[in-house]
Amino acid sequence: MGQKYNRLDKDQAALLLVDHQSGLISLVQDFTPDDFKNSVIALADIGKFFNLPTVITTSFDEGPNGPIVPEIVERHPEAPFIHRPGQINAWDNEDFVKAVEATGRKQLIIAGVVTDVCVGFVTLSAIEAGYDVFVVTDASGTFNHTVQQAAWNRMSAAGAQMMNWFSVACELHRDWRNDMEGLGNLLSNHLPNYRNLMTSYFTLQDAKKG
Amino acid sequence: MGQKYNRLDKDQAALLLVDHQSGLISLVQDFTPDDFKNSVIALADIGKFFNLPTVITTSFDEGPNGPIVPEIVERHPEAPFIHRPGQINAWDNEDFVKAVEATGRKQLIIAGVVTDVCVGFVTLSAIEAGYDVFVVTDASGTFNHTVQQAAWNRMSAAGAQMMNWFSVACELHRDWRNDMEGLGNLLSNHLPNYRNLMTSYFTLQDAKKG
Amino acid sequence: MGQKYNRLDKDQAALLLVDHQSGLISLVQDFTPDDFKNSVIALADIGKFFNLPTVITTSFDEGPNGPIVPEIVERHPEAPFIHRPGQINAWDNEDFVKAVEATGRKQLIIAGVVTDVCVGFVTLSAIEAGYDVFVVTDASGTFNHTVQQAAWNRMSAAGAQMMNWFSVACELHRDWRNDMEGLGNLLSNHLPNYRNLMTSYFTLQDAKKG
Amino acid sequence: MGQKYNRLDKDQAALLLVDHQSGLISLVQDFTPDDFKNSVIALADIGKFFNLPTVITTSFDEGPNGPIVPEIVERHPEAPFIHRPGQINAWDNEDFVKAVEATGRKQLIIAGVVTDVCVGFVTLSAIEAGYDVFVVTDASGTFNHTVQQAAWNRMSAAGAQMMNWFSVACELHRDWRNDMEGLGNLLSNHLPNYRNLMTSYFTLQDAKKG
Amino acid sequence: MGQKYNRLDKDQAALLLVDHQSGLISLVQDFTPDDFKNSVIALADIGKFFNLPTVITTSFDEGPNGPIVPEIVERHPEAPFIHRPGQINAWDNEDFVKAVEATGRKQLIIAGVVTDVCVGFVTLSAIEAGYDVFVVTDASGTFNHTVQQAAWNRMSAAGAQMMNWFSVACELHRDWRNDMEGLGNLLSNHLPNYRNLMTSYFTLQDAKKG
Amino acid sequence: MGQKYNRLDKDQAALLLVDHQSGLISLVQDFTPDDFKNSVIALADIGKFFNLPTVITTSFDEGPNGPIVPEIVERHPEAPFIHRPGQINAWDNEDFVKAVEATGRKQLIIAGVVTDVCVGFVTLSAIEAGYDVFVVTDASGTFNHTVQQAAWNRMSAAGAQMMNWFSVACELHRDWRNDMEGLGNLLSNHLPNYRNLMTSYFTLQDAKKG
Amino acid sequence: MGQKYNRLDKDQAALLLVDHQSGLISLVQDFTPDDFKNSVIALADIGKFFNLPTVITTSFDEGPNGPIVPEIVERHPEAPFIHRPGQINAWDNEDFVKAVEATGRKQLIIAGVVTDVCVGFVTLSAIEAGYDVFVVTDASGTFNHTVQQAAWNRMSAAGAQMMNWFSVACELHRDWRNDMEGLGNLLSNHLPNYRNLMTSYFTLQDAKKG
Amino acid sequence: MGQKYNRLDKDQAALLLVDHQSGLISLVQDFTPDDFKNSVIALADIGKFFNLPTVITTSFDEGPNGPIVPEIVERHPEAPFIHRPGQINAWDNEDFVKAVEATGRKQLIIAGVVTDVCVGFVTLSAIEAGYDVFVVTDASGTFNHTVQQAAWNRMSAAGAQMMNWFSVACELHRDWRNDMEGLGNLLSNHLPNYRNLMTSYFTLQDAKKG
Repeated sequence: MGQKYNRLDKDQAALLLVDHQSGLISLVQDFTPDDFKNSVIALADIGKFFNLPTVITTSFDEGPNGPIVPEIVERHPEAPFIHRPGQINAWDNEDFVKAVEATGRKQLIIAGVVTDVCVGFVTLSAIEAGYDVFVVTDASGTFNHTVQQAAWNRMSAAGAQMMNWFSVACELHRDWRNDMEGLGNLLSNHLPNYRNLMTSYFTLQDAKKG
Repeated sequence: MGQKYNRLDKDQAALLLVDHQSGLISLVQDFTPDDFKNSVIALADIGKFFNLPTVITTSFDEGPNGPIVPEIVERHPEAPFIHRPGQINAWDNEDFVKAVEATGRKQLIIAGVVTDVCVGFVTLSAIEAGYDVFVVTDASGTFNHTVQQAAWNRMSAAGAQMMNWFSVACELHRDWRNDMEGLGNLLSNHLPNYRNLMTSYFTLQDAKKG
Repeated sequence: MGQKYNRLDKDQAALLLVDHQSGLISLVQDFTPDDFKNSVIALADIGKFFNLPTVITTSFDEGPNGPIVPEIVERHPEAPFIHRPGQINAWDNEDFVKAVEATGRKQLIIAGVVTDVCVGFVTLSAIEAGYDVFVVTDASGTFNHTVQQAAWNRMSAAGAQMMNWFSVACELHRDWRNDMEGLGNLLSNHLPNYRNLMTSYFTLQDAKKG
Repeated sequence: MGQKYNRLDKDQAALLLVDHQSGLISLVQDFTPDDFKNSVIALADIGKFFNLPTVITTSFDEGPNGPIVPEIVERHPEAPFIHRPGQINAWDNEDFVKAVEATGRKQLIIAGVVTDVCVGFVTLSAIEAGYDVFVVTDASGTFNHTVQQAAWNRMSAAGAQMMNWFSVACELHRDWRNDMEGLGNLLSNHLPNYRNLMTSYFTLQDAKKG
Repeated sequence: MGQKYNRLDKDQAALLLVDHQSGLISLVQDFTPDDFKNSVIALADIGKFFNLPTVITTSFDEGPNGPIVPEIVERHPEAPFIHRPGQINAWDNEDFVKAVEATGRKQLIIAGVVTDVCVGFVTLSAIEAGYDVFVVTDASGTFNHTVQQAAWNRMSAAGAQMMNWFSVACELHRDWRNDMEGLGNLLSNHLPNYRNLMTSYFTLQDAKKG
Repeated sequence: MGQKYNRLDKDQAALLLVDHQSGLISLVQDFTPDDFKNSVIALADIGKFFNLPTVITTSFDEGPNGPIVPEIVERHPEAPFIHRPGQINAWDNEDFVKAVEATGRKQLIIAGVVTDVCVGFVTLSAIEAGYDVFVVTDASGTFNHTVQQAAWNRMSAAGAQMMNWFSVACELHRDWRNDMEGLGNLLSNHLPNYRNLMTSYFTLQDAKKG
Repeated sequence: MGQKYNRLDKDQAALLLVDHQSGLISLVQDFTPDDFKNSVIALADIGKFFNLPTVITTSFDEGPNGPIVPEIVERHPEAPFIHRPGQINAWDNEDFVKAVEATGRKQLIIAGVVTDVCVGFVTLSAIEAGYDVFVVTDASGTFNHTVQQAAWNRMSAAGAQMMNWFSVACELHRDWRNDMEGLGNLLSNHLPNYRNLMTSYFTLQDAKKG
Repeated sequence: MGQKYNRLDKDQAALLLVDHQSGLISLVQDFTPDDFKNSVIALADIGKFFNLPTVITTSFDEGPNGPIVPEIVERHPEAPFIHRPGQINAWDNEDFVKAVEATGRKQLIIAGVVTDVCVGFVTLSAIEAGYDVFVVTDASGTFNHTVQQAAWNRMSAAGAQMMNWFSVACELHRDWRNDMEGLGNLLSNHLPNYRNLMTSYFTLQDAKKG
């Protein structure tokens, strides 16, 4: 008998966005700025598209770390937003843990800045607390590739699943027929080459009809 | 006592080719186009050479994803070919699962586009269903190296074995004497430097005879 | 005495966008798709912001090359748009050359796909015709880094100046005071880390006022 | 139930600095010299800031391996310093093991040169002896990336946790409020981009007051 | 006035293929074997497609350097083939120079193995002799990237133009209408992603008709 | 006869530091933060060590660009410091040009952020004005490697000499005997591996004496 | 309690060198040729220095694969040398297994060409047979980095330990005092930078005496 | 008419080896240590093989820079060896210039450590003095790739030719028949893959005779 496939389910998953702040993001160098911005917004869009309960948190956002990037709040204006007064590991903040518990979900999709700390610590704490954790590797950034790999290693060894925003979207969606246009828009907005495929295709289709 | 070597066996293995479609392949950037094309065709040739039961599937091949690349169908004209109407994970498609079951094999050699979704989801489902999965890493492509590594991590953690087309061929063949010319041709067609070794060698052999 | 600084001037420059087509862009692998999309749109925005006379051309846009990406036409709906019936070098097309001449400008800012052909050939022809050419390297894409470097070498040896979209914008703008908000928006939209600087800064400014 | 989070605790952790010698460091090529120097000193500063019991050791420091780099001893002048007469694995040296035992700590933060030997062997021995080991990957250097990855693989497979100096600092500190200025100084001294965030922020704050 | 565009012309150009031998190619490491094989054959196909006078030469092809790769001779069975008895620089071989002169062409398209020697020396000699040289960078290989770049630098400084097989094909062809199917086949055979564009396109066209 | 060697001379050279501001530096991604910080401070130290007339300038340092990094002003407290009110090219600011002229030097050593704009534009203007320009490539940073290379290409084509802080120091110093300890300190502070050589050497020398 | 440290012991270890043949090595591209040659010879020297029972095997060495490289046989002229008539996995060859058994050792140090097949298959079979396997990653080569990483993944998941020649030497040697000159020579011959440290050191020592 | 090919001639060339010292080489990180060592010794072997007049120089070789590596002196025991007392640019040392003049040669093949200073300064001075300079790029090392490229740029702009040891050897040798065995040995000793070609070839030849 094989191993159980711990599969993302849109009715069991919540989204945690940790410390995507304007100052902290300037520390990220394991992705190009364009790639990282695209992945973070794509993930925020996924949360919205699938109506995932979403929890936002920041660390000292009145200091050098800077405020959360506006694109996240625009997409999740009503999400609980925990401004931590000092705890580095968001799980050490009671309000954050309560907000997560209030989602009633057992699958946590987590991304943040920086991967080794803001994502890593929450991930390890959440696993200890009995949650299933899915780390969105491309929407989480850090200082350089070496640090990224060490952080992945630690989280993976603890049982977290390493994913990327595209596979999160696809695993939640299951079947294109659930909302073909919705998923198509998501991909068109965040995968330039998929957008190009659609542009070519629909242009030809229109020509056919014309 | 050591761990059991879960070894590919040409009488126990089937080949699953997932979504090698002309549109989707344009998304692949973790290999050069020449390298990727060569690996995919090499794997299709392996399936043919070893008479592996082969199952082909595509996702929405009348839309932007495009049709399957012709080189695959040419080599496997009689393989069951499942055109999925919407399921992203091919294992969610009953016809596909039935086609796999119909092979009667328990070892599944899987490759496809993109690695994190089309390969990853099938792999995790197949493992859950009790199959042994061998992922052909170089005949599976995706958006970039980060996504590739996250996908490998997830599949490997679930027990899939990470291989490449050359090691698949060699593990299936076992002994050159089973068909020296056959394996030689396979390598000559898909490993340019091996072809060069053969060219140099046979030229010298011919000179000797001459 | 030093060498004359051949400097971009918004009253002397025209923008040529060559073959940014949905099919051809899928060939580009010397930039990530996000980076390339961002640079191309940034350049189109520059043309609009500085009211540069702009000429658009495509090659066989009813065939596999695909139509121009919509973001370009949206920003330049009234630009002359030359659909070339077969000429690979746009300069071999009389309508294109006339459109360029009609701009009355002597400085040509050129970008396109692929760098070695669609950009390179026009660049060499335009230089021969007496124009000053400024190649926008990051809004021009091609197959891989080796081809990119060979193409730069050839164009540079002929006297073209190698630039990037950001330096084009800055050289055209000359002084922030000419339109502080306008340039700020341009940078905020296309340089994620500059946007972050602005987010942090204005949040603090607002806090001060509040 | 999830896996226990084995979390660094400043009252349970000791710091082991292994063979950061002036000669041996010239062998390190998996980091730039500036990056490596910065990480090693940052880690030494962490030891001092958190008052971690620290053990220093060197191998043949009167020969070609060279003496310990002075920055370490300056920060830890009273740490036990074991000059090993020949043992390659520091754990084979009784004095070293006694010094570690004398710390009374069960969590060992280990860094050194070279990663595959001086760090790797101590790590494996310490795990066997029942300690929890946290390897500081960016303050440990070796010949090249391949060797680095093989060493990580071996240590990780044995249960060591892969970390970096920044995550070590953050996991030990837990809450900024424990010493805001202290942690701020540490980051300012060793993360140039964080220092820049602080410079921008405090300049604006001062302007507000002025 | 601008600089004269020294443009490839199919009636003025000859193709020189220097030392693409089975042994020597095993020294090439600045390209993947698949990429290099593809580029070399693409260039040989270009020579055939445009009926370029072609000269082939090898160095000691009965020794360790090995024979010419068969794909070249298959495409140019009647090309003069100079087996050099010892001259490293093919231009030092009278028969080779005569064969080049016999083409009556002044534009020489040159590729070979290794770039720094077999291509570089011929290039410098041919320029001295008054020819225009176009080096095909991706059909010329050598030991590593550093050597490649030094070789490009030397040839470029002497006035050679750095190109790639695709730009050579396009510059020779000038206009798709000269032979749309011919150029299409060439690209389809050697640019996997262009082949994919064509596959998608013609499948849709067929569907339209069907 | 050979080409005149345009050699840095400490009595003919001035140092221009352009826009090394805390906000702008967060845009730099063609060097690691540690490497870049080290190179910039090394260059500032060189200016001080050789008593080079030094001119500092910033762009909008009260806005998002942030203030100059403090390490520069600490080393050059009396250098003319031009806070530009809007000119992107510092050479468009009269005060800056006057400050440069006031140095009475004809050789300008220039570094800044970002390379393609703040360094590039000043460089091209200064060359036009008859100065000899020496760009310090590793103390000048920008968005990514592609932009860096385009900027180098443009400046180099105009006649600027590409250098690095170490070669600037050595060319100015000429002979170790001019101040052995001074140069030794400079290298020890900014070349970790040279510091290690000195540590090993002097330890052995001391042992000899002891 | 910690995990048992499975440590190399010179009285329990044997060395297996698999298919380091002159033809096959031309396929290796995951290391530079100089690096790979150096590592392979270093490992052969280690076998000799520690008197490890050594088994050599080749595959079809009269065909294109070529003979074993002479440096190995020179160092191990009396080692059992199994010329396999066709088995790809050396463990499928009875003579090879018998030769391994005849060493009486339970720790197998394995290296070869190519990593994914010649090393990987033997490793997995030997683990199944109850041996402890230590793979020498830098003395094992293959087609490219992707294949290398897949092969490491598979072997590591089966319990093989990933090492490098330097850590093998150090773990076997245990204490410099066991043979200071012997180990020094080994390092001096195969680590150029260590040789440099020794050159500097002994020159200074000699100067002291002189 | 083409440009004169400035070609290396063994009767006109001298070899200058600048500061290949055991300490300074530890600063080199733009090549792997094995690659760099191999290239330096290969170049020294070339000097010996072609009987080139050779001049050796070092900087402060009794201090931290360390003595010259022994492999160079072993190959050129009678070459003039200038121990500079302080001049950084060897051309500032009269004895060195005299030694160069005494060779009576006008072509100077130069390599050394570090590229940007020890090689760069001599190169620029020698060109000014009327010599033709050929820089051996792979036998010259420096801190990192950025510094390497800046140094190449400066030397190339001044008219130096960028070469590598292999092309130097081939250009000097001209024709294999001048000494087939001699050149064969040189290549066999320094090009592992060429050695492999020879091993395969001669083994087959011997088999033929046997």
